[in-house]
Formats: sequence, structure tokens, C-alpha cells
Amino acid sequence: MNRGSSHVTILGGGLAGSLMTILLARRGILVHLIERRADLRSHPLSGGRSINLALADRGLHALKVAGLYEAVVPLLIPMSGRMLHDIDGNTQYVAYGQREHEVIYSVSRNGLTQLLLNHASRLPNVSMQFDSECVDVNFEQRELSLTQHTTTSVIPYQQLIAADGYHSVVRQHLLQSTHSDASDDLLPHGYKELTLPAGSNRQHQLAANALHIWPRGGFMLIALPNIDGTFTVTLFLPFDSNDGSPSFSRLHDHSSVIDFFSEFFPDALALMPNLASEFLIHPTGKMHTIRSTRWTNDSNAVLIGDAAHAIVPFHGQGMNCAFEDCIELDALLKQRPFAEATTLFARQRKPNADAIADMALENYIEMRDTVRHPKFLLQKELSFELERRFPDRFIPRYSMVMFHHAIPYAIAYERGKIQTQILDELTSHANGIDDIDMAIAGKMIEERLPKLASVL
Amino acid sequence: MNRGSSHVTILGGGLAGSLMTILLARRGILVHLIERRADLRSHPLSGGRSINLALADRGLHALKVAGLYEAVVPLLIPMSGRMLHDIDGNTQYVAYGQREHEVIYSVSRNGLTQLLLNHASRLPNVSMQFDSECVDVNFEQRELSLTQHTTTSVIPYQQLIAADGYHSVVRQHLLQSTHSDASDDLLPHGYKELTLPAGSNRQHQLAANALHIWPRGGFMLIALPNIDGTFTVTLFLPFDSNDGSPSFSRLHDHSSVIDFFSEFFPDALALMPNLASEFLIHPTGKMHTIRSTRWTNDSNAVLIGDAAHAIVPFHGQGMNCAFEDCIELDALLKQRPFAEATTLFARQRKPNADAIADMALENYIEMRDTVRHPKFLLQKELSFELERRFPDRFIPRYSMVMFHHAIPYAIAYERGKIQTQILDELTSHANGIDDIDMAIAGKMIEERLPKLASVL
Repeated sequence: MNRGSSHVTILGGGLAGSLMTILLARRGILVHLIERRADLRSHPLSGGRSINLALADRGLHALKVAGLYEAVVPLLIPMSGRMLHDIDGNTQYVAYGQREHEVIYSVSRNGLTQLLLNHASRLPNVSMQFDSECVDVNFEQRELSLTQHTTTSVIPYQQLIAADGYHSVVRQHLLQSTHSDASDDLLPHGYKELTLPAGSNRQHQLAANALHIWPRGGFMLIALPNIDGTFTVTLFLPFDSNDGSPSFSRLHDHSSVIDFFSEFFPDALALMPNLASEFLIHPTGKMHTIRSTRWTNDSNAVLIGDAAHAIVPFHGQGMNCAFEDCIELDALLKQRPFAEATTLFARQRKPNADAIADMALENYIEMRDTVRHPKFLLQKELSFELERRFPDRFIPRYSMVMFHHAIPYAIAYERGKIQTQILDELTSHANGIDDIDMAIAGKMIEERLPKLASVL
Repeated sequence: MNRGSSHVTILGGGLAGSLMTILLARRGILVHLIERRADLRSHPLSGGRSINLALADRGLHALKVAGLYEAVVPLLIPMSGRMLHDIDGNTQYVAYGQREHEVIYSVSRNGLTQLLLNHASRLPNVSMQFDSECVDVNFEQRELSLTQHTTTSVIPYQQLIAADGYHSVVRQHLLQSTHSDASDDLLPHGYKELTLPAGSNRQHQLAANALHIWPRGGFMLIALPNIDGTFTVTLFLPFDSNDGSPSFSRLHDHSSVIDFFSEFFPDALALMPNLASEFLIHPTGKMHTIRSTRWTNDSNAVLIGDAAHAIVPFHGQGMNCAFEDCIELDALLKQRPFAEATTLFARQRKPNADAIADMALENYIEMRDTVRHPKFLLQKELSFELERRFPDRFIPRYSMVMFHHAIPYAIAYERGKIQTQILDELTSHANGIDDIDMAIAGKMIEERLPKLASVL
């Protein structure tokens, strides 16, 4: 194995690992990619495990930087807003943004990962190995122990970028060897992935260009469109409950599943004839927030993506954040030696990772509950109006996160808090947007929100 | 008005004119854009006049060259294949390409034109005037006569690019002044644009990611998806008929329209409650093929887009071809004086314009009739198989036109003829793809189709 000055080993051939591979290899760096699972291109992930994703501006920007944007576009289905489904089957459409380009995209995890692996594999200085699980890391010796089937071998690395996901073996060893720790907050809610089949003739049975939400207070169902007319549907629900309210623990057989959906999601149930059997076969996923005090050993190894900062999926930012990691790390590696670049990366990036972790948790409350409150729609409408009037100061937080990659997550989070305060004050006694004094609003904004250009 | 060395007047603020404006203005050229109609940004086209379009690789490539691709992506709905509807309401899906990226996109004419006008208007060296109809051109004096409301004024131009569409006033004067002529073939079929409304909740009532075709032999109905859940539906039908077969002349009132749709498109009719009234209000469009012997006066004026070469819409290439005109002309203008560049443009581009004009006419037969023949599906399947086996020699003609901007239309047309001959020979005695001897196929291809790399 080459021990020259520019040889990087990337652990994990998922979304972050394969994009990182492309970015480095395009600059002439020798990259060796190691993936635990089989090659996704011949063995796509099967149903039940986050089969589609929402791609937003940050992720798209990273793909542009990597020169992959045009290749990805054919995989994208635009979603221009949320379609809220109430318990009686009534729906309400709420646009995500107020400008035509402010849409997010549904994209297949398999399709996107395959595309990235294909592009990576075509680069001459990339080598890849699959079915190779990392079981040990020795940072001092710069060695990885890999298990392939029943054989374990030790291979050297020079510089290690670990994109090995929530279960990151590298993170565990990194924390151990540096006597550091990470918090791992398991959400008391799990998820179950289901399929809403196409109607006759590849027809979407719900609006194809929206993200569907069935908010039910303590839990919710969502659906994202696929190009073949199906939707990937995900139920988010507590694992357990003490008070008799719905939980996964109560959904243990065919009739309990059907009863639950009949009661809370009758319109979705009517479109999902195989719901109960799929429900009982598919795993119940767990959702963690990982906050690690260390992402690097300040020498030869660094964590990116979920390995560094797993977040819950409710802002649709896990992949977007991981892709942003890739381009930020790559930009630093262009200018500095590996140890210095990774130390700086961890320091610069962590406040942003922490911010999106918090916002993702908050967004769960918004999606499953707040969207149902009368003030939600008024505040959305007011947000758009304030953005029109004061575009250099007030941008709705959802828009800052989803449509403005130039605004770091941490800044979106901080400004979002101020904006929420302003919105709450302005709407506290208002029933409609006409009740709001825009002169007062403008004064509040000018006093509390510095011009964006001055803080970026 | 500036008469400096780089001042171009563009007549026509539609798709071609506004893209041409952007390309030139980005290079520092002063551009004055003149449009007959009101500003489309405040006065969008209303229903009945080609409200959406299919954007394919050639058009996308031109938008990339102009730096507009990323701005356009949010407007695009991918269509991965044709959905064929038979008279009994059965459907069959036939993919356009065999690779995941081989899709075409439905895009709103209003949305795309507005976007181009917005980008053009933001460039400092662009001026625009609307509601200004060109009624005369004097090439010797370099003057245009413009009518605004009731006033006619004469304005000078230095270099004139006419993107004034099928009815081009500049073409008429150009042909007159050069004693040249153009053929104008009116298709004996007209078109009628209709709306298939969204279902409840912005839901598409047909597959959202397909182009729908109801082929009926002598006529057809098609539908393209919009992001709001509606479809734009177009009926193509002869104006008249002598033998009692369906024609526009027989569809003159509510009941004749409903009877016609009940007989031939009952599934579409069921989804279009306002069909008859819309049908009677909307204009019946005409389709022309213009072949002009001159596109330029070899001095100070040139035609692009429909003004030079209006084609019928059945290959979805009118806009794509016009955008390709823009980047080809711009590339030549970068290197040569206007007179020389436009003369060369006309000479190089005309064979390609003629080829797509013919292919568009041929594709009408394919769409309205051939798709129903049993050999059509076998030949499609065989085409894809031959492309897999011989990718540097055999690419289905549809794919060459739609997915390969590097292959000029004229070459796609010529190779397409050879390929059709090969497909006919190979399938003449075959019922399925297994009946076909691939060794013989390979030999035929190698003998008759030179490697693509060697002809481009």
C-alpha cells in the first residue's frame, strides 16, 4: 500500500464516504474506500431502511462543488411544500418557500449512493473494497483491522477519514484513546418504513410534488414521492407509553396495526393494502443524536457525517449536513496538512453540527404537532411577509436551513430564536396578518437582527 | 442609442430571444431586447397556447453554457417514459432510455421564460422594451419600425438577431430583400390545449413522471405534468376530413366534443369536467414547418429559433433546437465579426434544422400510430439491447436526439435511417428478442455504422 504524501483511507462507502472519495480523488489524492456492506450497486438496500431522502440547498451545493450536480438532477423529484393530512382526511398545502426556486427534492438513497460510487469508481486513483468490516483501529501504528467474511487482516493507513455512520468504530476508538466522551441520546420514538404503492399505471396516489405529513401530536406519519409512482412512508411513534397512548410496543400483530392506522391514518391505510405485513416484517428503526467531544485525534484520523454527529431526521438535514462536512473538510485539506486541517475542521464545524442537531429535534415537534395550531399558519404567512419586506434581515428559519447554504447552521439557529420571539410578540394578539403593525415589526427587526451580510 | 462596436438588438423576448440576450450580455455586449407582447413576467400566457414544454439534453446543455442550469432545475418535473393509453383505458409504460439519467423534463413555458427575462433584466448592459411590434425592417439603413399602441417609431440597430418566431417579420423582409424564399408547410392537423385539473389536494390524476399519449392512428392526445398537480393536455387532430373520420371541423359544439372524447378518450374525459367549454374557448393552433433558404443577409441581421426554422412539436425539440441555435451562434460571434459569424452559423446550422424538422414530422406518425404496433415494443427493446452491446456505434435515434447533445441532429437523422433498416431486417422474422442472432446484428452494425467518435 502506498505510503506517499497523499494517500487517504476512507472508511464507509455510504453517501458521505463516497462523496469525500470523489472530492479528494479529483485533486489527485490516492483514495482507498472501505465499506462494511456489499457493493450497493449490485446489492441495493431493501425496504425498511430510509429508502429516500430530502435533498436541499446545502446538499445540492456540495454536489455542485464536486461537479456532480448535473448527474444528480435526473434523480430529483421537486417537493414545493408540505401537504398536511388531518384525521378526517382533509388536507392543507403549505408552501416551503415563497420563491419558485425554494423547493426541496425527494431522492432515492440507493440511486444517489450508486451514482456516487459509480463516479468514484471511474476515477483512476480510487480503489474500493466492500464486505470489509472495520473491527479495530490502532491510531499509533496507523492500522485498521478488517474482517472479510471470516478472515481478519490488518492494513495500514496514512490518513483516515471515517464516514462509518452512527455505529462508527473509529469514533469509539477515538474516544477511548483520547479519554474523551460523546453523548448518545436515543430518541424515545422509533420509526417504521412502509410503502404506499403506485396506483394503476405508475400513478402517485397522493400529490407527487409535496412532502406529506399526518401530524398527530405525539406521533406522525410522513410520505415522500418516488419516480415510479410509489411513496416511501415513515411512521414516527414512541417505542413505549405508560398512559395507554399509541406506541410501537402496542403494535405487535396484524389487527393492532390495522386498528391503529384505521383510527389515526385512515386515508393512508386505504392506499396501503400490504401495510400490516410490511409493518411486521420491517425493522423498527432507532434515532440517535450523537454529540462527540472529539472528531479527530489531531494527527491522522477524523470523523465526518453521522460518525461525528448523528442527528434525527426531522429537518431532512442528515445527508445535507454530511455533504457540507465533505466540502468543508476538503477545502481545509487543500490548504493545510492533514492534522491541522482536521483539527480546524472539528473546531469550526462542531457548533454548526450541534445547531442542526438541536433544530432537527425541534422540528419533530413542529412536524408532528405545531403545524396543526392556528398560529402556525399565521406565523408562516407573517414570516414570508417579513422576508419580502426585510430580505436582508429576516429569512424564515426553515428557509435559512433549507435554501441558504451560505448561512451556517449555528447562525440560522441563533437568528431563528430571535425571529421566533419577534413572531410570537407580533402574533400574540393578532388573528390575521392585517392585525399586525408592519412599522413596529420593522423596528423590532432592525433592532434585534443585524443585516445578514454583516454576520456572514 | 449606442452605435459602438458591440451593440446587438434582439427582436423577440420569448425563450430564444431572452436566452440569446443573456449569452451576449454576459460577454459585455450591449443588448436591446424588443418584444411584441406585454412583459410575460406580469402578464403570463393564458391557457390554450403551449403552456408547457419538454426540456431535453440539448436545451439543458445550452442552459448550462449560459450558467442558468441551476436556476432552472427547481422548475423541472422528470418524465422517465411514455405512458400509452389505449381506447379501453389500459395503459403501458415504455421507458425513454435505459439509463437512469435518460429522462426528459416537463417545464412551464411561462415559468421558464419569466426566469430567463429575470436573469436578462438583472444584467447591467441589457435594456428591454415590451408591447412593441416590429412592422418594418430596413436592412440598408439598419432601422426597425416599431408600433407601440398607436404610435410607430423608427429606431436604428447595429446588429439584429431576430427571434420573432414563426410569424417573423424579419424573415419576411429578409426573403424579400434577398429575393429568396422559404417553404411553409402547414400541417393539416391542428392542436387544442386543454387542462386536466389536479385531483383533490394537488394530486396528479395520472402518473406524474411520465408523458402520456393516447395514440389513435390519425390523431392523438398527449398530457404533460405540472408541479401543481394539473396536466396540460393537447389534442392533435386533422382540421378537416372527407371520409367522416374525426376532425376539428366536426367538433363545433358541446355535444360533438363530448361525444368525440367519449368515443376515443373516455378515461381522459372522465378526469376533465370542463373539457367541452375549454375546448370551445381555446384557439385551435396551427403547426408549420418553415424551411427558409436564407437566415441572414450576410451583413447585419440573422434569424434564430422558430423565425429561421419553425418545426412541428412532436419531438419536443422546438425550444431545445432554438436554445442550441443560441449557443452555436454565440460561440461563432465570440470568434468572428457579425456578418461572418452569422453566415457561417446559417451554413452550419441549417442541415441540423432540416433534420430535426423531418424527424419531428416522422415522430408524429410514431406517437399517434407506430407506438401501437407490436413490432414497436420489440424494436425498442432490441434498440436498448444493441446500445448495451455496441454503445459506441448504436444509440437509439430517440436517445441521440433527446439525450446526446454532442450528436448533431443531421447525424442522428442519417444514422437513424441506417439503424431503422437494421432493426427492420433483424425483427422481420422475429417475435421476441430471443429470436434475434446477436452475432449477425453485431456484424451488420459494424459494417454499416461507423464508430460515433470517428464521425463527431
